[in-house]
Amino acid sequence: MILTITPNPALDVTYHLRHVRWGDVNRVETVSETAGGKGVNVARVLHQLGESVTCTGFLGGETGERLRELLTGVEQRWIPVPASTRRTTAVVAPSGTTLFNEPGASVPEQAWSRLRALVTELVDTGDVVVVSGSMPPGTTDATVAALVGTATGRGARVVVDTSGPLLRAAARAGATLVKPNHHELRAATGLDDVVAGARVLLSDGAGCVVVSRGEVGMLAVAADPGGPHRMWTARPDSVVSGNPTGAGDAAVAALARALHRSRRPVPELVATHLADAVALSAAAVARPVAGEVDLELYRRTRDRVPVSSGAH
Amino acid sequence: MILTITPNPALDVTYHLRHVRWGDVNRVETVSETAGGKGVNVARVLHQLGESVTCTGFLGGETGERLRELLTGVEQRWIPVPASTRRTTAVVAPSGTTLFNEPGASVPEQAWSRLRALVTELVDTGDVVVVSGSMPPGTTDATVAALVGTATGRGARVVVDTSGPLLRAAARAGATLVKPNHHELRAATGLDDVVAGARVLLSDGAGCVVVSRGEVGMLAVAADPGGPHRMWTARPDSVVSGNPTGAGDAAVAALARALHRSRRPVPELVATHLADAVALSAAAVARPVAGEVDLELYRRTRDRVPVSSGAH
Repeated sequence: MILTITPNPALDVTYHLRHVRWGDVNRVETVSETAGGKGVNVARVLHQLGESVTCTGFLGGETGERLRELLTGVEQRWIPVPASTRRTTAVVAPSGTTLFNEPGASVPEQAWSRLRALVTELVDTGDVVVVSGSMPPGTTDATVAALVGTATGRGARVVVDTSGPLLRAAARAGATLVKPNHHELRAATGLDDVVAGARVLLSDGAGCVVVSRGEVGMLAVAADPGGPHRMWTARPDSVVSGNPTGAGDAAVAALARALHRSRRPVPELVATHLADAVALSAAAVARPVAGEVDLELYRRTRDRVPVSSGAH
Repeated sequence: MILTITPNPALDVTYHLRHVRWGDVNRVETVSETAGGKGVNVARVLHQLGESVTCTGFLGGETGERLRELLTGVEQRWIPVPASTRRTTAVVAPSGTTLFNEPGASVPEQAWSRLRALVTELVDTGDVVVVSGSMPPGTTDATVAALVGTATGRGARVVVDTSGPLLRAAARAGATLVKPNHHELRAATGLDDVVAGARVLLSDGAGCVVVSRGEVGMLAVAADPGGPHRMWTARPDSVVSGNPTGAGDAAVAALARALHRSRRPVPELVATHLADAVALSAAAVARPVAGEVDLELYRRTRDRVPVSSGAH
C-alpha cells in the first residue's frame, strides 16, 4: 500500500476576483474549496494515476469535515484533533495568484502517538509511506524522527517532503528519500550549491535526495556504499506555463509509485523514474488546481524527458 | 429597545503578516477572528456606549457559532440558516490592509419570514431597528421592503445602511433614516452631487438621509412637510488617521441611540446629533478593529465638531 501522511492538512479556499485592489476593500466574486495539504495532493495525484492510496494525518472541526467530504475516491484514516483544520486562502485574479497559508494549530502528543499506532497497524514490508508538507506548530525533531522510525521499522520505504530543521530530522531518522525544492534545501542546509546541500542530507542519513528545481527539472543524489555519491539530472524538454503549486507533490507521487512497484534498490529506481517525476510535475503545472495532473500531457511527454548522469 | 439586524453577517478573519509578496506564497504569522458584519459592528459600538442592544440576522455553520461566541455582552437572537456564515479575510501587513469580502449564501424565504416574525415579537412603539450591511445574494426589493414595513408597522423607527438598489427599496418602504456613504449614494442614484443624490432617496420615501463622507464629515438632508428640504453639515475639526472600516457603523450607532432616547421629530434629532455621529465615527477610525471605538477620544471631541445648516 501507499500511505500518505499530511500532518498539517488544509482546506484550500480560493477567492476568485475580476480585479484586485491591494490596500482596499474587495468583493469576492466566487469562493471555491478543495482538499489541500501536500500529502493530500500526493494522494489525489496517485488516485488519478489509478493507484490505491490511503490518506492520514490530523483533522479537526468543520473545515476538517469539509476536507474529508471533498477528498473523494481516496481511502481516509484521519486522526481526529480538537483544533479546526487550517485554511489556505488563494486570491486568484487575472493579474495573478497570491497564496496565504495559515500556520495551523499544534497537535497534542496523544494524537501523534495514535498516528504512529495507525502506521504500525496499516504498514508492512514493501509498503511506501509519504510524509508531506508543513508540520503543525510545535512539532519537534523527535516527533518527526519517531514517525519516520515507526514506518521504516515496519519495513516500509519512507518519502519525506517537508522543510526547515524537520527535513534534516527526517533525514537523520533514515528516510528512504527526501524531496526538498531548491529553496527548501538552501534554507535547511544554509548552502547555495544544490549538490553540496543534497550531500548534507545524505550525510544526515537520507538514502536518496531528489531536489525539484522548477522549470530546470530535478537533481537526484544517492549514497553509494561502494564509492562516491551517484547523481542524475532530468530536465523537461519544454516549459509548461501554469500553476506551479502542487508540481512537487506530483513528483513525490511518481517516486512513491516507483518505490511501491519494485523492490529494486532506491538509487536505481530513482534514476529510472526521474524522467517520470519531471513529466508528472509538468502535468501538474498544466492544471490550475494543486493535486491534479493533466494525464494526456503526462503520457505525451514522459518518454521525452532526457536524463543524464551527474549534475547539470 | 434597539434591535440591529445583520442579514449577511461575517466572521471577520485577519491574517497578520510581517511582509506580503503579491503574486507569491505567503506564510501567515497569526490569525485572529472577530464577530463582523455592519449590524454587528453597530451593536458592538452601542454596547461599548453602555446601551442595551439585541442582535439578529441569519447565522449558520461553525463560522456562525464562532461569531456567536465572539460577540460577548450583546443579547443575540439569530435566525438559523443551513449555509455557513461567510468570512471576510483581512490581510494586514505593515505596508497596509487589504480586505476580501466573501459574498455569503442566499437565505431561504422561510428564514426571512422567521426574521419578520421575530421583529414583530420583539419590537414595539419607540423602539429603533437598524438594518445594516450587505444583503445575502438573491435578496429582492420586496424582501427588504417587507422587513422595513414590519418594523415601521410595529411603531419602530428604522435606520437602514445598505447599498445599491436595495438601499432605494428601503427608502421606498419608508425607512426613517438611511445612511449611505458618498460612494454608495452615487452608486444607488447615479448622481455625483451628494445633495442631489440624497434628495432622490427622500423622494423615494426616506424620512432623512445622512451621507458619510469620510474625513469631510457628514451631510444630513431631511424632508420638511412645510417647505423645502432642510440640510446640515458636520465636519470634524481634525483628521484622525487609522482604520476607516467601521466608521460608518459608529455613526449609525450614534444616530440609533439618539432616535431611541427621544421621540422628538427625526430631522431635529439628526440635526442635534450629527456632531455626535461624526465624533463617534472618528473614535472608530482611531481603533484598529471595526466595531470598536476610542471612548476617550469620543468624549474629548464630541463637543468640538462644528455643525452648520446647509450643504458645505
